[in-house]
Amino acid sequence: MAERTLHGTGATPRSGVGTVVWYGRDISLPDPDDVEVNPETERRRFADAVDTARAELESEREATAERVGEDEAAVFDAHIQFLEDPTIEDTVETMIADGGLAPNAVDAAFGEHIEQFEGMDGRMAERADDLRDVRDRLLRLLTDGERVGLGDLPADSVVLAERLTPSDTAQLDPERVAGFATVTGGRTSHAAIFARSLALPAVVGIGTDLDTLEDGAEVVVDGDNGTLLVSPDDSERAAAANESGAAVVNDSVKTTDGRHVEVAANIGQPAELEPAAKRGADGVGLYRTEFLFLDRETPPSEDEQYEAIRQALDTFPDGRVVVRTLDIGGDKRIPYLDLPDEENPFLGERGIRRSLAPDSDLFATQLRALLRAAADGAGDLAIMFPLVATIEELDAALDALEAAAGLDDYDADAVDPEVGVMIETPSAVFMADELAARVDFLSIGTNDLTQYVMAADRENERVGDLHDPTHPGVLRAIQQTVTAAHAEDIWVGMCGEMAGDPDLTELLVGLGLDELSMSAVTIPEVKTAVSETSYSSASERGDRAQLAATRSEVHTTLDT
Amino acid sequence: MAERTLHGTGATPRSGVGTVVWYGRDISLPDPDDVEVNPETERRRFADAVDTARAELESEREATAERVGEDEAAVFDAHIQFLEDPTIEDTVETMIADGGLAPNAVDAAFGEHIEQFEGMDGRMAERADDLRDVRDRLLRLLTDGERVGLGDLPADSVVLAERLTPSDTAQLDPERVAGFATVTGGRTSHAAIFARSLALPAVVGIGTDLDTLEDGAEVVVDGDNGTLLVSPDDSERAAAANESGAAVVNDSVKTTDGRHVEVAANIGQPAELEPAAKRGADGVGLYRTEFLFLDRETPPSEDEQYEAIRQALDTFPDGRVVVRTLDIGGDKRIPYLDLPDEENPFLGERGIRRSLAPDSDLFATQLRALLRAAADGAGDLAIMFPLVATIEELDAALDALEAAAGLDDYDADAVDPEVGVMIETPSAVFMADELAARVDFLSIGTNDLTQYVMAADRENERVGDLHDPTHPGVLRAIQQTVTAAHAEDIWVGMCGEMAGDPDLTELLVGLGLDELSMSAVTIPEVKTAVSETSYSSASERGDRAQLAATRSEVHTTLDT
Repeated sequence: MAERTLHGTGATPRSGVGTVVWYGRDISLPDPDDVEVNPETERRRFADAVDTARAELESEREATAERVGEDEAAVFDAHIQFLEDPTIEDTVETMIADGGLAPNAVDAAFGEHIEQFEGMDGRMAERADDLRDVRDRLLRLLTDGERVGLGDLPADSVVLAERLTPSDTAQLDPERVAGFATVTGGRTSHAAIFARSLALPAVVGIGTDLDTLEDGAEVVVDGDNGTLLVSPDDSERAAAANESGAAVVNDSVKTTDGRHVEVAANIGQPAELEPAAKRGADGVGLYRTEFLFLDRETPPSEDEQYEAIRQALDTFPDGRVVVRTLDIGGDKRIPYLDLPDEENPFLGERGIRRSLAPDSDLFATQLRALLRAAADGAGDLAIMFPLVATIEELDAALDALEAAAGLDDYDADAVDPEVGVMIETPSAVFMADELAARVDFLSIGTNDLTQYVMAADRENERVGDLHDPTHPGVLRAIQQTVTAAHAEDIWVGMCGEMAGDPDLTELLVGLGLDELSMSAVTIPEVKTAVSETSYSSASERGDRAQLAATRSEVHTTLDT
Repeated sequence: MAERTLHGTGATPRSGVGTVVWYGRDISLPDPDDVEVNPETERRRFADAVDTARAELESEREATAERVGEDEAAVFDAHIQFLEDPTIEDTVETMIADGGLAPNAVDAAFGEHIEQFEGMDGRMAERADDLRDVRDRLLRLLTDGERVGLGDLPADSVVLAERLTPSDTAQLDPERVAGFATVTGGRTSHAAIFARSLALPAVVGIGTDLDTLEDGAEVVVDGDNGTLLVSPDDSERAAAANESGAAVVNDSVKTTDGRHVEVAANIGQPAELEPAAKRGADGVGLYRTEFLFLDRETPPSEDEQYEAIRQALDTFPDGRVVVRTLDIGGDKRIPYLDLPDEENPFLGERGIRRSLAPDSDLFATQLRALLRAAADGAGDLAIMFPLVATIEELDAALDALEAAAGLDDYDADAVDPEVGVMIETPSAVFMADELAARVDFLSIGTNDLTQYVMAADRENERVGDLHDPTHPGVLRAIQQTVTAAHAEDIWVGMCGEMAGDPDLTELLVGLGLDELSMSAVTIPEVKTAVSETSYSSASERGDRAQLAATRSEVHTTLDT
C-alpha cells in the first residue's frame, strides 16, 4: 500500500510512475540596482499580477467549492479580499512611484501587514498566513526567472506545479516526463487537455495537499482514478508501469461495410502535432489558434501565425488541417484584448462575435496568415468559424475572408481552402440547412452545443448530470445537423469531447458523422472501434437512439 | 423646453406628469437602549446587508459599464473593495460582539476610517466620499423604519428611489402614482416588469444623476423615450397628460376568420391582478410565484401560498390561471435558500432543477397549496414547470404532483388541473413531441429560449442584437414546438416579452399559437391586433417567415 493517496481529477486514462520535480516553487527578488526601473511599467506589472492572481483565486475558489464545499472555499474569498485591500495597494503604488520594483514593493508592503497581524491574537494572527499566501502568489507572478527548466528534466520525472500554463507545457519534453500533477485545474483546464493530447498520465486540481510533497519523492500518477500514490509499493508501481494503450493504427479506417470515417486530432499547441501524428491521426479536425495569443503582451504578428499554421500543414502532408479562427471570450481571457466582465460569459461576446466586431483587425490578420500558409504548406487547409449563430455572421465572416484573399500578392485562385462552420449554438442547428448551403463542411462542437441545448454550464458540477451529450435532446440536435449537411452533399464532423469516447464511436458512425476529431490519447481506440463497426447496423442503432425519450433509453440502445 | 433631461431605460411605453416624492432617502439610527440586542442576530443582519450591498453594487457596476463605460464603472469596484475591507469588517464585528446594534456599529466603524481619509491628501481624501457612499448604502439596508409610506402618497406623485423591491411595489397605490423613476435597474428588472403590468409610466437605470432632484420638483416621466424631463414646459406637460392607450377589449377575441386566441396576463405579484383584469385579460398565462418567497427570512407557509393562488383564481372566475412553480436561481436570488455562486448562473441550478433537488420540500408544499386552491377557487388552475430540459425531469415533477395530491384530504379526483411545461431550453424544443405526449399544454418562454438558442445573455448589452426572438433560429424553434403540440392535440402558448409586442401578433397567430400572455400594458393592443388578423393569411406569412435565412428577411415578410 502506498504511504499516502492524494485525490484530484484524472485528466488522462493512463498511469505512470516517477520521481517528483517541483516546478515554479522558488522565489527570489530582483536587485533593483541591476535593472532600469520605469515606474509606469512597474505599476502596470503590478496591476496585471493582481488581475491574474484574482482570476486564479476565483477559479480555485470555484473548483474547491465544487470538490470540497463552500466552507473550505471561503479561504479564497479572504485571499481575494487581501489582494484587493486598498491600503496595501496604495502602499505598493507609493513605493513604485518612489522608484521601487513591483515585486520588491509587494514584498515590503505585505511584509508590514504580516508583521502587524502576527502581533495580534487568535483569528487575526491566522490572517498573517493568508497574507503570506497572497504575497507569494503575486511574487510568483512577478518573478519567473528561478524556475526549473521544463525542457531539461531528468528521465521519469513527475512534474508537480501550482498550475501549468500553455507556455509551461510548450516547454515540456514528453519523452522525459512520466506524468504531472497540479494544485489547480479541472478536466477542461489547459493542462488537462494538453495531457490528453500527449497521452501523458496526469491528475489536476489536487489542491494544496500537493504542497506537502517534496522533490525526489516516488509517486504513481493514476489519471484513471484521479489519484497520486505517494511511495507506492511494488505491486502499485508495477501496475502503473505495465499499463499500455491500444495499438496505433496509421492508415485511414473504414467500417466493416466500407464507409470511410476520418479520425483526426484536436490540437491546442504546436507541441501536440508530432504526438498526434504518431498516434495515427489522419489530420487535424480542430486546430485551436488561441495558444498563439496567450501569455504575451501583444498579439502575434501575421508571420508568426503563418509559421505556426505552416508547421501544422507540414506535419500532415497528406491530411487536412481544420483551423478554427480565434475563439476568445467565454472562459478564455487574454489581457491585451480588453475583454468585458460578463455575468454569464458563456452567453456573452465570444468566438466569431468578437472577430466580427472589436477584434476585426486581428481577424483580418489571422485570415491573411491562414491563406498564405495554405498556399505554401504541404497539407490541405480548412478554415472554420466558431460560435456562429446567424447567417448574417457567416456572411460577414465570408466577406472578411474574401477581403483578406484580395489583399495578398499570391494567386488567390490557386488557394482554395475549404470553409466551414462550427455547430455550437442551437440556432446553428435550427439553421443548419441554410449554413450547409453556404459552406464546405460543418463540425459539431459538442462541449458548447450540449451546454446550450441543455442550458447547463459545462464547468458547473451542480448541473453536471445535464451536461451529457447522450441526452436525447443533444442527439436530436446532432442528427438534425448531419441530415442538413448531407442534404447539401457536404461532410460533417464532430470535435467535442464526445468524439473521443470509444464507447460512443458506433453511435456516432451510425448517426452519419463523416469525421471524428479528438484529443490524441484515444485516437487508436477510436480507429479500432470504427474498423470493427458495421455502418448498416450502426445506422439502425442511431435511428433507435433518435426515438429514445430519456438518456437511459439511449444507453439501452447502445448496450443491445 | 424642460430645464433638464435625465436619461435612462424606458420601462413602459407611457408618459406621465407629476410631483417628485423621494422614497427611502432618510436614514436615522436606532437607539440601542430601546431594543433588545442579540449579537447573533446583529451579526447576521450585518452579513446579509453586506451580501445585498455587494449584489447591488455589482449590478450597478455592470449597468454603468454598459451604459457609460468601464472607466465610470470603476467607482463601483472601489465601493466593493471598501465593502469587503477586512479591517472595517473586523471592527464592526468586534462592536457587535460587545453588544452593539449592526447599523450603529457600521456607522461608527466607517466613521473612523472616513475621518482618517479626510485627513490625507488628494486621491486618498477622495476615498472618504467612497466610504461614505458605502456606509449609507449599508445603513439604508439596515434601517428601513424611516421611509415614506408608498401606500399613502399625494395624488400625481412621481416616486423616485434608488430601486424598488417587490415589497415596495406591493405597497404602491397605482391610483395615486403618476409614474416612477429609479437609479438602478434595466428593462427586465422587477420594477420595470411591475410598471408594465400596471401600465405605469416608468424610467429605470437613470444612475446617480437622479439624486440631484429634490422632493416637490415637477417632472414628466417619458417611458417611451426613457427620459425624465425636469420642470417641463406647458407643451411637454400637455403631451404627457393627454396620452392614452388603445381601448380595452373585455371579451375574448377571434381572428377575422374565427380562430380563437386567448390573450392573458403575466403576473408578478397580487397587486397586478386587478389592473390586468381591468385591461381585459382573459386570464393569467404566467403567474410567477417568486414574489411570495422574496424579501423575507423564511419561506411562506402552505396557507399563505394557498391564499395567494386563491386570490388569483377568484379574480378570473371564468378564466384560466397558469401558475409556474418556483423558478429560483439564474438572476433570481433568495437569501434563505443557500443558492450557489455560479460562473454562468443562467446555465446553472435554476427552475425545476432546484425544485427536484435541494428545494424538494418547498416544491411539495407549493404543489399542495396549488391543489387545495384549485379545489376551492373560482377559475381554472393550470400548473406549469419551468426550465424542463429532459423527460426525466418532467416525470419526476409529475411524480411529485401525484404525491402531493395523494397526501391531501380532499377529493383528489375532483381537482384535475391542467399540467404543462414551459419551453425554455433548446432541449425541450428538440424533445417537444415527447413532452407534448405527457402533458396538457406547452408554453414558450421566449426570453430564456432566445437566450439559449442564440447563446446570448439577455442582460448583456454586448450581445443585445443577438437576443432578439425574430432571428429565424428562434422562429424555427417556436414553429417546431407548435407543430409538436398540435400533433398531440394540446394547446400551446407563449409567455415571453415577444408575446406582448402588437407588431408581432399577426406572425405569432400565423405560427399557430393558441394563447399569448404578456404584461398587462399591451393587452388591449394585442387583443385589437388579433381581432384584425386573418388567420389564413397570417399562416402564409408564418410559413414565409420560416423560410427566411436572416432576421432582415423575417422583417421583410412582416412588412409585406
